[in-house]
Amino acid sequence: MTSRFVSLDTYDVRFPTSQHLDGSDAMNPDPDYSAAYVVLRTDSTEVGEGTEGHGFAFTIGRGNEVQTAAIHALRPYLVGRLVKEVLDDLGGLWRELVHDSQLRWLGPEKGVMHMAISAVVNALWDLKAKRAGLPLWQLLGSMTPEELVDLVDFRYLTDALTREEALEILRAGAQGRAERIATLLEQGYPGYATSPGWLGYADEKLRRLCREAVDEGFTQIKLKVGADLEDDLRRMRIAREVCGPDVRIAVDANQRWDVGTAVEWVRALAPYQPWWVEEPTSPDDVVGHAEIARRIAPIPVATGEHVQNRVVFKQLLQLDAVSFVQLDAARVAGVNENIAILLLAAKFGVPVCPHAGGVGLCELVQHLSMFDYVAVSRSMDDRVIEYVDHLHEHFTDPVQLRGGRYLAPLAPGFSSTMRAESRARYAYPDGPIWNPTNTP
Amino acid sequence: MTSRFVSLDTYDVRFPTSQHLDGSDAMNPDPDYSAAYVVLRTDSTEVGEGTEGHGFAFTIGRGNEVQTAAIHALRPYLVGRLVKEVLDDLGGLWRELVHDSQLRWLGPEKGVMHMAISAVVNALWDLKAKRAGLPLWQLLGSMTPEELVDLVDFRYLTDALTREEALEILRAGAQGRAERIATLLEQGYPGYATSPGWLGYADEKLRRLCREAVDEGFTQIKLKVGADLEDDLRRMRIAREVCGPDVRIAVDANQRWDVGTAVEWVRALAPYQPWWVEEPTSPDDVVGHAEIARRIAPIPVATGEHVQNRVVFKQLLQLDAVSFVQLDAARVAGVNENIAILLLAAKFGVPVCPHAGGVGLCELVQHLSMFDYVAVSRSMDDRVIEYVDHLHEHFTDPVQLRGGRYLAPLAPGFSSTMRAESRARYAYPDGPIWNPTNTP
Repeated sequence: MTSRFVSLDTYDVRFPTSQHLDGSDAMNPDPDYSAAYVVLRTDSTEVGEGTEGHGFAFTIGRGNEVQTAAIHALRPYLVGRLVKEVLDDLGGLWRELVHDSQLRWLGPEKGVMHMAISAVVNALWDLKAKRAGLPLWQLLGSMTPEELVDLVDFRYLTDALTREEALEILRAGAQGRAERIATLLEQGYPGYATSPGWLGYADEKLRRLCREAVDEGFTQIKLKVGADLEDDLRRMRIAREVCGPDVRIAVDANQRWDVGTAVEWVRALAPYQPWWVEEPTSPDDVVGHAEIARRIAPIPVATGEHVQNRVVFKQLLQLDAVSFVQLDAARVAGVNENIAILLLAAKFGVPVCPHAGGVGLCELVQHLSMFDYVAVSRSMDDRVIEYVDHLHEHFTDPVQLRGGRYLAPLAPGFSSTMRAESRARYAYPDGPIWNPTNTP
Repeated sequence: MTSRFVSLDTYDVRFPTSQHLDGSDAMNPDPDYSAAYVVLRTDSTEVGEGTEGHGFAFTIGRGNEVQTAAIHALRPYLVGRLVKEVLDDLGGLWRELVHDSQLRWLGPEKGVMHMAISAVVNALWDLKAKRAGLPLWQLLGSMTPEELVDLVDFRYLTDALTREEALEILRAGAQGRAERIATLLEQGYPGYATSPGWLGYADEKLRRLCREAVDEGFTQIKLKVGADLEDDLRRMRIAREVCGPDVRIAVDANQRWDVGTAVEWVRALAPYQPWWVEEPTSPDDVVGHAEIARRIAPIPVATGEHVQNRVVFKQLLQLDAVSFVQLDAARVAGVNENIAILLLAAKFGVPVCPHAGGVGLCELVQHLSMFDYVAVSRSMDDRVIEYVDHLHEHFTDPVQLRGGRYLAPLAPGFSSTMRAESRARYAYPDGPIWNPTNTP
């Protein structure tokens, strides 16, 4: 009861993924998947109780040191405080961090500083779930509607979603929870495979990976597009040939287009029946997304991995600009803000299909989708979690898929803990991977 | 011709303004006005040529070290390069920084990383103007329409403004430039006074400062509002009494309200004839701004100091959400992006009235407004530059006002150079102001 936070330690961890073009797309040709990683340590010694919370912001290489510095700047907000007091009011802690009157100038609520808050908030949730002995999705799924809305900051949302409306959604969501938990534990949650479609892969590799994805049981895959239309048409044709007419093939332009180009490009791809078009233009352009959605209908638009906060998601929904909400676990300010986004999506009846193309993101978002199913939307229809099959080995509780479905994680926490060996080995710039003269 | 950039040095400089509630508003009760400051140094030794470029991002205290770290991360993009090559293609350099495939993940184009690019881009413009022996506004005003559009990145803008349309605006702007330059040099550019209206000031101080502003010749002042309606009504009544019916009184809520609250609050203030309502809600909420603007018409909405980039300005204009564009010199990515914003505003016929409530911002934005008058909008009607009367003494070329008007700066550069003594004295955390045991 009297344990306190004793440190907030940060780690700059980078994986040299650019060497194999894993993760390559039209805007990100050579990413080095990285984590600005944080460990919150406590002086707790009670047996069986979690003593550390782990979280991270995902980046793709250069600048990860800036992201790490931003997380470090949050140190004074936690170190020395009582663990129980903080964890008992994570809504309050969220407001304290996000609305800090000086820090907010660096956003507000966007970019490096907001992602830093994400890392810390998620680490707190990891700790809270470990102490509760539950996986995060189940901890959230056990909370009352009142407890859940207290986590949400309705500032700037009330023209689209009030606290009372959120309570109604959650009260409806409380019914039948036990059955849905049983379903999840038995059947898991559908995933889709992005790994086949990175832009840097040769056609033969694309063909092979598409076939493998279908063989593994995935009913949806995704191709990166947007660099060259002829290439995209050829790759889309290959994917459609291999996958057949029934597998859903989403395409992802990673913000490459202006509004006019997006409309032309998607119309050219239409004969191959793209399931959705992801990030057709700037993630900041809600008006542009709405215009694109109107002009390429009935092909739906998806976006979210770079949407900076709940206020932009609100507008995308208000303008009918998106048919799929692709929240990211570590860009908006962590679990609390993602609960707000799940509630907004539920209010507008739009499915949430989280972004997970990055190190550790699959591990995180599975908890959010499963909570959504248990307590918010109550549906898995047209809902899928992105799956990318790399870097999972660096986590102590990696995602597990079977037949193209995510198995519900059972270990206490947020699945956010990276192995200490990986943290050391890929430490930048001094870990042995980056500086081979340093052997462990 | 062969000189190179030899260093990019950063400085964390903070002024303890919170001690006197200068700068206090409904969202920022106790700011310490700060600069994440950068000096680009070259090995140039030619006589009369600028050897250093100075720039900064403005923050309000905590987190300034994160902002400084972000500027430092840009070091490898400049150090070692030929000065002339970089300065001859600042459009190219801008794209290189903003679209860096790894760094952009930290935004994209927003928050800490974008502000860092702002500081560096502005420092490059400072250097370029110094080498040209011209104040920045005049350097920009001497460039051809083709040279100017080459500075602008039209990505994500073409649904509202094409390169060809921008060229037309600038070609029209090339006519009569000499007369307008003469007018500027003779009459200056109108300012407005924010200093009277900080929220933390007592009524008597408000009354005195309003009177002084009117006596000095200002025809517009601004009051901070949004914390307490009764207080706002009383302060607005006082200001209107002191200023009389002809002085324009803008009000500024600093993002305090949701859409519904904004509408109610502004309607309550309407009898005192607010000239504009500034930042009624989240700067990210273009749909919300449009809704507020529609419902409080004919009272106009102004925003911009926290608008993250040109894409959000584009949408505010597309949705008729703002009647005044309040660009900030150091939040979007510097001079280049502000030229894009000036062109967007001209296309939509909306006046630009820059934000300048912060250390060094008056010094910067005067150049942008004067360039706008000389070469873009060609008008000073309903256009004013914010003026706050503090911290100017820390700059080597401080703004000068006469009769409520900014005098055109004449010294070569961007007026962005902070005195070396101030940089040392207010250095955080080791300067003598912050650590009195360190005497210089």
